[in-house]
Amino acid sequence: MNLNIEESVFKQRVVNCARAMKREDQDVLLLTKPSNMYYLTGDGRLCAFVMISSDQQVAIGVPQTDVEDVTDLAYFDHINSFENEVGMIHSIAAFFKQFGISRGVVGLEHTFLTSSMMKMLTHPHAKPEAVKVEDCTDILSKLRTVKDPIEIQLMKKAGRVADIGMEAAVDSIKVGLTESQIAGEGEYAMRQAGAEGFWRSYVASGIRTRIAHGIPTNRKLKKGDIILIDLHPIVNNYSSDICRIACVGKPTAEQIKAYDAYLEALRKTISISVAGIGMVELEETLHGVIHNAGYGENIFGPPIHGIGINFEEAPLPPGHAFFHGEKAPPPLVENTTLAIGNCGIYTKQWGLRLEDTVVVGKKKPFVLTNYSHALI
Amino acid sequence: MNLNIEESVFKQRVVNCARAMKREDQDVLLLTKPSNMYYLTGDGRLCAFVMISSDQQVAIGVPQTDVEDVTDLAYFDHINSFENEVGMIHSIAAFFKQFGISRGVVGLEHTFLTSSMMKMLTHPHAKPEAVKVEDCTDILSKLRTVKDPIEIQLMKKAGRVADIGMEAAVDSIKVGLTESQIAGEGEYAMRQAGAEGFWRSYVASGIRTRIAHGIPTNRKLKKGDIILIDLHPIVNNYSSDICRIACVGKPTAEQIKAYDAYLEALRKTISISVAGIGMVELEETLHGVIHNAGYGENIFGPPIHGIGINFEEAPLPPGHAFFHGEKAPPPLVENTTLAIGNCGIYTKQWGLRLEDTVVVGKKKPFVLTNYSHALI
Repeated sequence: MNLNIEESVFKQRVVNCARAMKREDQDVLLLTKPSNMYYLTGDGRLCAFVMISSDQQVAIGVPQTDVEDVTDLAYFDHINSFENEVGMIHSIAAFFKQFGISRGVVGLEHTFLTSSMMKMLTHPHAKPEAVKVEDCTDILSKLRTVKDPIEIQLMKKAGRVADIGMEAAVDSIKVGLTESQIAGEGEYAMRQAGAEGFWRSYVASGIRTRIAHGIPTNRKLKKGDIILIDLHPIVNNYSSDICRIACVGKPTAEQIKAYDAYLEALRKTISISVAGIGMVELEETLHGVIHNAGYGENIFGPPIHGIGINFEEAPLPPGHAFFHGEKAPPPLVENTTLAIGNCGIYTKQWGLRLEDTVVVGKKKPFVLTNYSHALI
Repeated sequence: MNLNIEESVFKQRVVNCARAMKREDQDVLLLTKPSNMYYLTGDGRLCAFVMISSDQQVAIGVPQTDVEDVTDLAYFDHINSFENEVGMIHSIAAFFKQFGISRGVVGLEHTFLTSSMMKMLTHPHAKPEAVKVEDCTDILSKLRTVKDPIEIQLMKKAGRVADIGMEAAVDSIKVGLTESQIAGEGEYAMRQAGAEGFWRSYVASGIRTRIAHGIPTNRKLKKGDIILIDLHPIVNNYSSDICRIACVGKPTAEQIKAYDAYLEALRKTISISVAGIGMVELEETLHGVIHNAGYGENIFGPPIHGIGINFEEAPLPPGHAFFHGEKAPPPLVENTTLAIGNCGIYTKQWGLRLEDTVVVGKKKPFVLTNYSHALI
């Protein structure tokens, strides 16, 4: 029994998935990405796989150690276990046989599998030779983009935990602490508040805020530093994303100007995040305000991305989607969840960005992360 | 200037890499795995790439935001920057041209790149059409398996930080805390002690210890639980790996028996970790003791793996190496670093394992993780 979501929700997802597979002419999916497995069955873990047939059968393969645990958590029709990698391959072959699939198309996760994993899953002892391989990324992305009501509930909780983590991280700031210690304060508070984990934290300070991916280092905070903090808790399998800027001492007039521009861009973009809007329009709105404030040359990074079980998932703006193996998204539907504000303003001496997790509403957006936007 | 390792060390690595490329008939490497980039240049980060030519030229491509930061940290001959994914592709093409490579072979990281990333890096606008793609995993694995003296120094520090994290996690244990909170205590202590980050933590308790990958949940500790804690700090870019078992209350006689067998297996395997030994012999030694104690049917998982910049890297036991896209390793050389004890004894009701980070010595092994092995 899944702890948070009813069986009927998972069953309906499998029905929707099978329908999408028929549209795409894929006869079976072979999934190993934990978030995709979780979405369809209620459990997603390392060293396991899920196969979905277009007639709605669900098969799971897991390490022999995990059979009972998976049986308690997941919904499926068939389960198989294995002792090692050879066993995993045979287990896949057994399900191809059980499903009666000796030709046709198997969908694999091209945006997740490394070439070596792809080789293992399509090993001649696993996959029947006549079965062709195609990418199933888009099938899963489309299913997962619009959230069920229960998913929105779970993401609200993840949003609150992000706020708690941000508060702890910001409150801890003082001269002499390292970026890593600030990250630790935020992460610790998130685990205390109910996160079962988190995606990588970014904490960059002073001149390091100018880089695109400020993974924490042992750089110590100095007076006059600005600090970028970007946190991503996982709560009941769902993620949220928040980024804020804090200061040790006072920000410069230039930093305040850029900050105000970014905040205006963020607010304006959030305010138009309603059903029917396109990702391009959101991107252009965010960029537009920053551009008009004179920082057009200082923008870097995709400004918006989807969020849910993964902290970065579909939809992505079309330009970025292409390079990440995803398709350009259609106009957004109510209950799509976005992290808005992922690009930044970066100068040679400092950088800043703000990010919030937002539910696309029918008439109004709903913001899940609510820690203060004040530059403190 | 790299903070911990001299320029001459990186230069020598590039020389060794170029020599290996010639042996393997690879004319240029195109790397995006941060650990491989770090190993050869002194910097490895997301959204960047490194190209190494067989005549020892080093080129780096980075986001435009990161040029100065990378210039401060890395050693290279050429640097290029880009604004987005299209720019990254053009940047790769520019280096192919600069190196004068219009045919021959480019080595790519098949054990790291997803199919969609592979497609992007080999896009016709990036890679000259006549240049063939081969896997360069083994070249980098061979270079990185045996550690330089400075790497051993850095890993000693990572070992001490793992001990500190384990102590904090074990000391925090009490009825009612969640697995996630225990993980948080260990992670917090590691960041306080100098870790700039960590790989995923495992904390499993009670019946959840029976599964192979016990990622923390919000399960609360109960009296009588055993708790598996597995931590992996990153300190100055180098990792260590420690796993211990603790109890809330008293372990059962059966648990003590299995624990003692595992500890004996671990100690015996560590004791023979000297130059000239094979991974198979280490694996058989560890399995042998567990088997003789009557738990042969309860073993799951690769018992040993290499460790260094990544917490799991080459060498792997031959059977596992094959499925992970790595080659079977030759007899071990002095200063190879291993995490020993990665497999466990798993029953239907509980599981346990112990793990330490070990330097293969000329005549004696040197253990980097030294937190008590007592079952407490």
